[in-house]
Amino acid sequence: MAGKSSTCVGCPNQAACASGQSSAPDPAIEEIKARMSLVKHKILVLSGKGGVGKSTVASQVAMALSGGGNVTGLLDIDVCGPSAPRMLGVEDMDVHQSGSGWQPVWVDENLCVMSIGFMLPSRDDAVVWRGVRKIGLIKQFLKDVNWEKLDYLVIDAPPGTSDEHITIAQCLNQTSNVGAVIVTTPQEVALLDVRKEINFCRKAGVKILGVIENMAGFVCPHCGNSSEIFVPSEADSVQGPSAVLRGAEAMAKKHGIPFLGRIPLDPKLGIASERGEALKNSLALQSLQSAVQNLRINCKGNT
Amino acid sequence: MAGKSSTCVGCPNQAACASGQSSAPDPAIEEIKARMSLVKHKILVLSGKGGVGKSTVASQVAMALSGGGNVTGLLDIDVCGPSAPRMLGVEDMDVHQSGSGWQPVWVDENLCVMSIGFMLPSRDDAVVWRGVRKIGLIKQFLKDVNWEKLDYLVIDAPPGTSDEHITIAQCLNQTSNVGAVIVTTPQEVALLDVRKEINFCRKAGVKILGVIENMAGFVCPHCGNSSEIFVPSEADSVQGPSAVLRGAEAMAKKHGIPFLGRIPLDPKLGIASERGEALKNSLALQSLQSAVQNLRINCKGNT
Repeated sequence: MAGKSSTCVGCPNQAACASGQSSAPDPAIEEIKARMSLVKHKILVLSGKGGVGKSTVASQVAMALSGGGNVTGLLDIDVCGPSAPRMLGVEDMDVHQSGSGWQPVWVDENLCVMSIGFMLPSRDDAVVWRGVRKIGLIKQFLKDVNWEKLDYLVIDAPPGTSDEHITIAQCLNQTSNVGAVIVTTPQEVALLDVRKEINFCRKAGVKILGVIENMAGFVCPHCGNSSEIFVPSEADSVQGPSAVLRGAEAMAKKHGIPFLGRIPLDPKLGIASERGEALKNSLALQSLQSAVQNLRINCKGNT
Repeated sequence: MAGKSSTCVGCPNQAACASGQSSAPDPAIEEIKARMSLVKHKILVLSGKGGVGKSTVASQVAMALSGGGNVTGLLDIDVCGPSAPRMLGVEDMDVHQSGSGWQPVWVDENLCVMSIGFMLPSRDDAVVWRGVRKIGLIKQFLKDVNWEKLDYLVIDAPPGTSDEHITIAQCLNQTSNVGAVIVTTPQEVALLDVRKEINFCRKAGVKILGVIENMAGFVCPHCGNSSEIFVPSEADSVQGPSAVLRGAEAMAKKHGIPFLGRIPLDPKLGIASERGEALKNSLALQSLQSAVQNLRINCKGNT
């Protein structure tokens, strides 16, 4: 159907696609399959909207998984806004090339990370790249990085449903045990984009392991009262076992996808991310751990 | 230098660029120049990181400018996550084709809007497009939309520095009175990406009209105490006229760009955006109006 479906109308590449030029097998795929065969579970972390704390959640999930004794990698495919190096506290490290490929940066014995952030001359440099070049780098991250044997590879994607997402889904679909976690905030503008992301996963054939609701309510440190800063959407509201479900939980139920948990808005989570530390002694910690536990169970169910 | 500079190494299009094939003038540019000559000020709203409230700020700025009697257009170039139709309360409207081009949707007599959101069969549909196709649509939005005579065209871009940003900067640079507003939150992970955006604007030759700091502190509705949910960065801290400057204001001072203002984290602002209404009776309103007033002054200085 390449170049011939109704959605291809107007695309400048339509003629090239329809001619079948692009249907030749991509030689990178075999190399990606070989490298990824050593990785047990691949977890793609997606969000519709930006700024829902996706990178924060992805890095904290990677730290929680590795802290539980599982060898975990974090791959940052947000080429224009890499944040993984900072969020894992390894901003000043460099990536080295070896005979077996690019060496990821090891945070501790169970956690490694790869990001374009390690390759920029200055951390303020902008990566002004069009899609086609980002696609090339993402394929390199899958095939040329010496990931070794991992229990989990957590992949932090930029917001949206474009080049990065299409490419990573196409590449990972050639491998096994692939699933997506969708991170959102509770309000309707965010959920609007999550529904797009759900549609994307279904079109791309990526199983959804679950949804995490982030920034769900703020407990005032002065008075202890809770405020809904991002007011939960009522759009998919439904009666739950005890109370009315709202926000991401209601949306997950409506779309038949697992709800992994709700993480409250806690300045300590942001500060931990800024400092590249794992979350400790925080309201959000228990919620995060419970969400990661649910994720582990759903990964097992996906093998 | 196309295809020959050191930054071109590794790009799959390098050979095509270097051969000069792509140096032929783009026929769309003349049409864009003609259409944009009717628009007095073009304001590109950028953010490094997503979710800093860029679309909320862009739509509220457009509403504030039009409310002041200026005919204003809002162009949403976030192709994969359009939110302008919802944020202006015109989600159910359609775009019509006429002899003079696509008709933007008029919210009231002074405010019109164009977004791919109006063209989707369902609001949950994902626009799974690679960069090259997004570029085509953005050019169409500049040349084929019947913008008529506008005082301001506010352009809401997705986060990052990729296809959409390169394209819009290249197109607008052929016209006059173009400037960028950068929206950020106070914490260092956000400012890290803002510095990239500043570098992008400088490389692309787009004048920066100023920075707006959003989500700057939360006043608890229960006890009236203020909490810094997104803790301001200390990275560029500098002594100001009365207090130590932190966060976006310090960063703006360091980079020699104007600071337009600080908008507090106020659930009412999010709710107004969700409902597609202009902000009223809110803590954030005065801050927003003051930032818009500064923006107006800087636009005048940019003619």
